[in-house]
Amino acid sequence: MLRYRTVLTFQFCMKKIFPLLLLCLYIRDYSFSQSKQMYDSLARSLITTGLTSGKAYELLHELCFSIGHRLSGSSQAAQAVEWSKNKMNEFQFDNVRLESLFVPHWVRGNTEEAAMLNANGEPQIPLTVCALGGSIGTSPEGITAAVLEVQSFEELHSLQEKAKGKIIFFNRPMPKEKIMPFEAYGSAVNQRGSGAIEAAKVGGVAALVRSMTMRRDDVPHTGSMSYNDTVKKIPSAAISILDAELLSAALSKEKNVSINLKLSCETLPDVPSANVIGEIVGSEKPEEIILVGGHLDSWDKGHGAHDDGAGCVQTIEALRILKQLGLQPKRTIRAVLFMNEENGLRGGKHYAQSHSNEKHLAAIEADAGGFSPRGFGISTDSIRFEKIKTWAYLFASIDADNFKKGGGGADISELAKQGIPVLGLRVDTQRYFDYHHSDNDTFDKVHERELELGAIALAILVYVLAEEGL
Amino acid sequence: MLRYRTVLTFQFCMKKIFPLLLLCLYIRDYSFSQSKQMYDSLARSLITTGLTSGKAYELLHELCFSIGHRLSGSSQAAQAVEWSKNKMNEFQFDNVRLESLFVPHWVRGNTEEAAMLNANGEPQIPLTVCALGGSIGTSPEGITAAVLEVQSFEELHSLQEKAKGKIIFFNRPMPKEKIMPFEAYGSAVNQRGSGAIEAAKVGGVAALVRSMTMRRDDVPHTGSMSYNDTVKKIPSAAISILDAELLSAALSKEKNVSINLKLSCETLPDVPSANVIGEIVGSEKPEEIILVGGHLDSWDKGHGAHDDGAGCVQTIEALRILKQLGLQPKRTIRAVLFMNEENGLRGGKHYAQSHSNEKHLAAIEADAGGFSPRGFGISTDSIRFEKIKTWAYLFASIDADNFKKGGGGADISELAKQGIPVLGLRVDTQRYFDYHHSDNDTFDKVHERELELGAIALAILVYVLAEEGL
Repeated sequence: MLRYRTVLTFQFCMKKIFPLLLLCLYIRDYSFSQSKQMYDSLARSLITTGLTSGKAYELLHELCFSIGHRLSGSSQAAQAVEWSKNKMNEFQFDNVRLESLFVPHWVRGNTEEAAMLNANGEPQIPLTVCALGGSIGTSPEGITAAVLEVQSFEELHSLQEKAKGKIIFFNRPMPKEKIMPFEAYGSAVNQRGSGAIEAAKVGGVAALVRSMTMRRDDVPHTGSMSYNDTVKKIPSAAISILDAELLSAALSKEKNVSINLKLSCETLPDVPSANVIGEIVGSEKPEEIILVGGHLDSWDKGHGAHDDGAGCVQTIEALRILKQLGLQPKRTIRAVLFMNEENGLRGGKHYAQSHSNEKHLAAIEADAGGFSPRGFGISTDSIRFEKIKTWAYLFASIDADNFKKGGGGADISELAKQGIPVLGLRVDTQRYFDYHHSDNDTFDKVHERELELGAIALAILVYVLAEEGL
Repeated sequence: MLRYRTVLTFQFCMKKIFPLLLLCLYIRDYSFSQSKQMYDSLARSLITTGLTSGKAYELLHELCFSIGHRLSGSSQAAQAVEWSKNKMNEFQFDNVRLESLFVPHWVRGNTEEAAMLNANGEPQIPLTVCALGGSIGTSPEGITAAVLEVQSFEELHSLQEKAKGKIIFFNRPMPKEKIMPFEAYGSAVNQRGSGAIEAAKVGGVAALVRSMTMRRDDVPHTGSMSYNDTVKKIPSAAISILDAELLSAALSKEKNVSINLKLSCETLPDVPSANVIGEIVGSEKPEEIILVGGHLDSWDKGHGAHDDGAGCVQTIEALRILKQLGLQPKRTIRAVLFMNEENGLRGGKHYAQSHSNEKHLAAIEADAGGFSPRGFGISTDSIRFEKIKTWAYLFASIDADNFKKGGGGADISELAKQGIPVLGLRVDTQRYFDYHHSDNDTFDKVHERELELGAIALAILVYVLAEEGL
């Protein structure tokens, strides 16, 4: 009986369920292959449009040459806000608006920054330095003190009896053996961020930090540093790689090495500024948002071309190409140009707080330079990661189909804390820290097609996410 | 009975064969995982060694600044041969030798190349031009003629009655919509290679060719061109992009547009030169060879830094790092720096002929610029392709694991004709044609770490191939 029933069940399966299953599979595959074909052709259109009539490079040229660098609180930052809003309007984005917030206002000051090296009474040698962002200045006559070179905070604290009254020179290089420059940066940047605090703890009178770069030249690289309330605030500056080597050589050869350091920087009261926002409103689920953005502020060096002029113009360009092709996906694509990533993250924090009631499906940031795209770094759960990865094939023709776990951006890190999936545009970063936060970060370092390909990659991804959801 | 035998057979399988099969699978997996572990650790060592104590950049600096560009037949090419041999000896390569051959000897000549634009009798405008390699020169007073602009050979032949006595201006751009610049180059380069032939067929007196680049600047790009025996030889020169645009605008606006073109180039008798060869001789099967190389000659413009100084120093560096780590694989790794890739391919042809009795398992060329590596392009049968692809994981950490079908290099194309698998180092080529064959191709355009990473990729691949065979 049992056996007969089994046979019957089997026959039923073969006759009824199996064909139905086959049909379902066929429909699924057919529909997948249809949507694959549609997205293939869409990606191809976006690529051709971007490469033949793209505007990312032209936009970056305008930003770099009509405005230049744009530190939070500066008049250039204010101009950049207006410029971005105007561009978004010109390209007919929806709901173009500024969202106001207050930002820190640190200024480098008008006196020339200087560090004069005095070794055994020989003629003084000028070292190329620049104040780190957030540092206090010195008195007009500067600080003159002997120098103590260290490679780490551990070494500093082990030598603390020698540190009192000295300028502490943090000279640990970014480790060359790290393949990805961002990793090398991560290994060394605590000297810049916390050097002044650690130096002050042992009685140091100033901190001088080897620039965060692997390029051997005479250009100092600035960047953010911080103080805390428990120790004295002391001035902190970056020194170029060549002069860090020169100073280190002088210290190893000479006995009486001192430096006179003059910085005229100061922190003024907070000033009003804004995030700049524009959208392509979704046709079916406008309340579901795919965010894409970069940061509009930069350090007060070079043009802020790669960091992050590139990410801003790529964000604008991504939506502009979609508009040019008349593409409106089901969900809303929102471009956000954040203010104050470099020295406060006020824009990112303000956005996350004031939009916490909205439904963000994903947030993507472009802030690793305008180099050739390689794919996306993705921070989310495994299911969403795999879903996003199924679209990697759309990026194969532009060699940007390498999707990896882990990624995002500083401006969207507060959204990540709310559990929103965050992604970062992955690019080829070997050259990034040659330019980063320095006078080297100028327009001519950005390549037109590399920049545009990054914008195209953003356009493809935001469109697919806004169409398919996540 | 049948059923009983089936059961017996099944039992036999389960008891005897199945465990054996499991054991085999285990051994295979264990041995694969052992060799995977070994190669992982080897790749890691090569990466660390290259990034921390690599010499590729230093070698390129020496080649560029102590020798400079090195066109076949020039004294610099002869110096580059000696320099390479000395470097291979210094790094203790095995069997370092020169293999002599004769090369073409085309020279640009000593008179300044010039093209003066005369539009309606206005003051003449100098256009930036340079002779194409292989072109005949003009008389000292130059050729003065009206100009006919065309986009293609088809257009030229359809206008042939207008072409007689004119300078034919081939102005079809490299198509921007091609994602890979090499493809765009391939779409436009027939104008440079055959422009003089096609122009002469319709009675043209000279050919002026839009430079093979997508960068808008005033630097002309040279490159090879050819004649045939059936039509008259006429002079042929490249014009910079900005001046191609200027000339085109003048032609569309003015009626009487003529150019006076002066070139002093000529072809001298062939001269002796050489390929430079060095090896790491295999420990078990020294007769089986993995070849890796680039070309030592360059055009007589810039430093020939990316094309192909980079490939040469990467070839030397790949073997040098292996030597530094004391690695000797089972089979022979042979470095070959070919002479005369640019205007004759004599080195590649000579090598393929004179080594046809040897057993080459694979030949790899690095000749797409010293940019960030992305993987390898591989031309071989599917079985070998899949075998090579199994090692792609070794390149994942340096983001160079994108192995694709199709690839090789001009110098090893004759080996490919003999059925030998050929591979090309794939790099990020978006910037390549900005520099290619022009004064833009200088040392400063090459990035130290990008260059070194390419050398590391070559080192890993040649070692694995020489150890595992193919």
